[in-house]
Amino acid sequence: DFCVGDLNGPVGPAGYSCKKTVTVNDFVYSGLAATGNTSNLIKAAVTPAFSAQFPGVNGLGISIARLDLAVGGVIPMHTHPGASEVLVVIQGTICAGFISSANKVYFKSLNKGDIMVFPQGLLHFQINAGKTQSLAFVSFSSPDPGLQILDFALFASDLPTDIIEETTFLDAAQIKKLKGVLGGT
Amino acid sequence: DFCVGDLNGPVGPAGYSCKKTVTVNDFVYSGLAATGNTSNLIKAAVTPAFSAQFPGVNGLGISIARLDLAVGGVIPMHTHPGASEVLVVIQGTICAGFISSANKVYFKSLNKGDIMVFPQGLLHFQINAGKTQSLAFVSFSSPDPGLQILDFALFASDLPTDIIEETTFLDAAQIKKLKGVLGGT
Amino acid sequence: DFCVGDLNGPVGPAGYSCKKTVTVNDFVYSGLAATGNTSNLIKAAVTPAFSAQFPGVNGLGISIARLDLAVGGVIPMHTHPGASEVLVVIQGTICAGFISSANKVYFKSLNKGDIMVFPQGLLHFQINAGKTQSLAFVSFSSPDPGLQILDFALFASDLPTDIIEETTFLDAAQIKKLKGVLGGT
Amino acid sequence: DFCVGDLNGPVGPAGYSCKKTVTVNDFVYSGLAATGNTSNLIKAAVTPAFSAQFPGVNGLGISIARLDLAVGGVIPMHTHPGASEVLVVIQGTICAGFISSANKVYFKSLNKGDIMVFPQGLLHFQINAGKTQSLAFVSFSSPDPGLQILDFALFASDLPTDIIEETTFLDAAQIKKLKGVLGGT
Amino acid sequence: DFCVGDLNGPVGPAGYSCKKTVTVNDFVYSGLAATGNTSNLIKAAVTPAFSAQFPGVNGLGISIARLDLAVGGVIPMHTHPGASEVLVVIQGTICAGFISSANKVYFKSLNKGDIMVFPQGLLHFQINAGKTQSLAFVSFSSPDPGLQILDFALFASDLPTDIIEETTFLDAAQIKKLKGVLGGT
Amino acid sequence: DFCVGDLNGPVGPAGYSCKKTVTVNDFVYSGLAATGNTSNLIKAAVTPAFSAQFPGVNGLGISIARLDLAVGGVIPMHTHPGASEVLVVIQGTICAGFISSANKVYFKSLNKGDIMVFPQGLLHFQINAGKTQSLAFVSFSSPDPGLQILDFALFASDLPTDIIEETTFLDAAQIKKLKGVLGGT
Repeated sequence: DFCVGDLNGPVGPAGYSCKKTVTVNDFVYSGLAATGNTSNLIKAAVTPAFSAQFPGVNGLGISIARLDLAVGGVIPMHTHPGASEVLVVIQGTICAGFISSANKVYFKSLNKGDIMVFPQGLLHFQINAGKTQSLAFVSFSSPDPGLQILDFALFASDLPTDIIEETTFLDAAQIKKLKGVLGGT
Repeated sequence: DFCVGDLNGPVGPAGYSCKKTVTVNDFVYSGLAATGNTSNLIKAAVTPAFSAQFPGVNGLGISIARLDLAVGGVIPMHTHPGASEVLVVIQGTICAGFISSANKVYFKSLNKGDIMVFPQGLLHFQINAGKTQSLAFVSFSSPDPGLQILDFALFASDLPTDIIEETTFLDAAQIKKLKGVLGGT
Repeated sequence: DFCVGDLNGPVGPAGYSCKKTVTVNDFVYSGLAATGNTSNLIKAAVTPAFSAQFPGVNGLGISIARLDLAVGGVIPMHTHPGASEVLVVIQGTICAGFISSANKVYFKSLNKGDIMVFPQGLLHFQINAGKTQSLAFVSFSSPDPGLQILDFALFASDLPTDIIEETTFLDAAQIKKLKGVLGGT
Repeated sequence: DFCVGDLNGPVGPAGYSCKKTVTVNDFVYSGLAATGNTSNLIKAAVTPAFSAQFPGVNGLGISIARLDLAVGGVIPMHTHPGASEVLVVIQGTICAGFISSANKVYFKSLNKGDIMVFPQGLLHFQINAGKTQSLAFVSFSSPDPGLQILDFALFASDLPTDIIEETTFLDAAQIKKLKGVLGGT
Repeated sequence: DFCVGDLNGPVGPAGYSCKKTVTVNDFVYSGLAATGNTSNLIKAAVTPAFSAQFPGVNGLGISIARLDLAVGGVIPMHTHPGASEVLVVIQGTICAGFISSANKVYFKSLNKGDIMVFPQGLLHFQINAGKTQSLAFVSFSSPDPGLQILDFALFASDLPTDIIEETTFLDAAQIKKLKGVLGGT
Repeated sequence: DFCVGDLNGPVGPAGYSCKKTVTVNDFVYSGLAATGNTSNLIKAAVTPAFSAQFPGVNGLGISIARLDLAVGGVIPMHTHPGASEVLVVIQGTICAGFISSANKVYFKSLNKGDIMVFPQGLLHFQINAGKTQSLAFVSFSSPDPGLQILDFALFASDLPTDIIEETTFLDAAQIKKLKGVLGGT
């Protein structure tokens, strides 16, 4: 029926090993109830309930996260290497979009109650397009979808500047500027 | 990357065939924005965005639905034969639960922002446990999870009363009463 | 090639961990050879060879069980949350059927050598339709298909009577009567 | 819920396209009820109910076949490229076995009611080990498991004798003798 | 056994529909035999044999491509949304690497015969690190892995400059410069 | 993102458990760089980089191997029970082929740069068809494809001669001769 993750047991390609004794509290999670802290660079917060936070979804092919976007907030360009995503707008207006392998862009302004799907592994983003705080929930087709934020991958990692230059054609000055902001070395 | 469903093309075990030309509107759906009509027997409404309603999720392993529960509303005992489900409470208080293969019951009262997971194929339910209208979104690990509502399966179908009796041990009078309410023959 | 389950090792979403040393006896099981005990309420017996009983099928996407139905015997309305099923009648006559998500009923009387398929997660049943003992083997598309018998889930569990009432529309008297028979509290 | 195969529609990697209108007869098959014709070289018969014969299993991850073995009958060394198999002996005594990738052999004499599992893609065989007709049913973890009988692949095909010699180290005389028996060119 | 893609038939989430008549030429492809044209901006060429080019792999969970890198050549930062990749160096020296979801960088200089694996959906790159032409073959865990080259997605698409700015923190001047080079609008 | 195999931890149906700390060297392997030893009966060598040799591919759905064929070398008739294969010729000329379930043979002489796909679980072979050493790389749709070489399965195992006779129709003299060469008992 289910395999609630034992975060202290062995992990394999299919997920955590199963906890031996479970209660209803293994299937319920309140960690998405509070507004995420948006006092940061992106004025936004992603609060995940993936199998590492919410072991009840381990092995079940699904997970969820909460997006909070303050005015001017942005979930920067990112991918989920292991899952497709469906977003539902709960509050506010969000401009969301993705880019296909064919370099075609699909983006639209979404209002309360609108949903949008982002196919697995493609670059996508969400921007608060209104004048109030926005809230959305995003669901994933995997309990462990992964999250690779482009800027953090490039500019908050220890990837050498010359390799970034060669593989992205960005100017060294631009790279160094963003490394400065994001903490890359 | 994706395979937006062509609802008029051939369907196979993996879903609809792919639409040839797509726009951003194939990936966005507004059909969940409005409150479902809860003026019915169960004082509740399930509004699905499965691949048949929202072909953008075809082949992507995920879908979503909206649950509206008026005061006293109930989503009756049901299963999704092809998917696990994650529920997030947007408004109100919902008592939700499921029953495992081992006949153990897991249920809890959920408040705004709480999430709960229902493992694939198990009987589960949602009840408005508060004094106001409730709203939840539920996501599924399949674009076509199916929905088998126990009472409709038994009492709104043409399954003969004697077979229901034999296979559920319900009394014939009880069966006939519910067939009368739900339209079974 | 294979991963015979080690019932004492860690379990994960994909099954048991693999036993280190195996012999031919890990791939053979005689537990289905004897007639199941049908001296019970349902005059029937389900004897499973799932991965917990027959660890040779662990990880191999298949399992099997034996159904014995005495005269008047019934395998009550049930689902397998994690597998489709194929039944083959070995002896006797069995009336078998399932109900689809669309509340359509498919049932038929099956004779010796007939087979029937029950799609994953849907409610189904088997009734001895003849005047002699019946025997069938049922195979599953998973080593661990699960088995949720409707009556046991509802009336042999500790689901409160008022929740059953609200989610199934059954009368309290009916619920209490069946709880009495089946041991629910 | 299901996708009964339309044998005249397009076929894809996941199986046949779905038939539009179905009845209970799409889920039931009587083609395994009769004893297979064992008046042949191997004194045995394999009668399949794969998706091509029994379209009800299309997309459901399971299928079944009937094995009849006359006295002295043999299901020769073969593989199923796309499925694991579980065999249940209904009548008689069958010596069954398989060979692993590590060239280890697992075989045993099975009696009525015994089951044995053959992991996906491995060479295996069944021999009537008793003095009466034997009957078994075999289930597969795929609606379309495939069946590659070693002797037919080598000696009933148009694979040139010198290639068989080079790739199996069999003597040309042996190859030609078996091609003569089995019809290879 | 197989399902050679019919490029003119319907396509579904699992791939192309199956060609009715096949010959050995459907399973063989010579399109990777010639050196790719590296007279371009990146001094490199990716020649795919995905299901669209080589329909023999349709439905089989695998595909391959050829990488040619002239002196100074680079396969820019990219992802495959639907597959993991294994690279084998045939000629020359290649510096290859990927970035994990945890923003950790894994890169190394690979010589002839070395292999490297790039997990599904993660940003990765290959750079000719030697003074001669390099050649590698890359295999994928899907017949249709997709290929999203970061610079083309951002700067060769019609994603508005202000959205790129907001979602990547790149300066508008940098964006416009690269759009000029790569053809974005 | 990934699950580098811990060869000393528990193994499950989905592969090895995940190593806790990884470096770039877990994703790179040099074991295929050297020419395999072809001084043997088949004048050929298969050098695998499956998950047991190259734990970086664990859980990622792909692996690779190196084929060396001296003049006159042959990779004898074999199957991979758990994967499809794509071969790319790096040097020399190789005659490669497979046999379908329908006993149809597909074979062709392949030159440098040509690729060929071998569908999962089917008998196939590779023969050096030129006058020089040949080299190929073969990729698989699984990190653990398995390898069952027909002659080793039959003649290097302890399968009794009379069972081989009965299940392959080979003459006892032929069987004993090959057992003598290959070490079967």
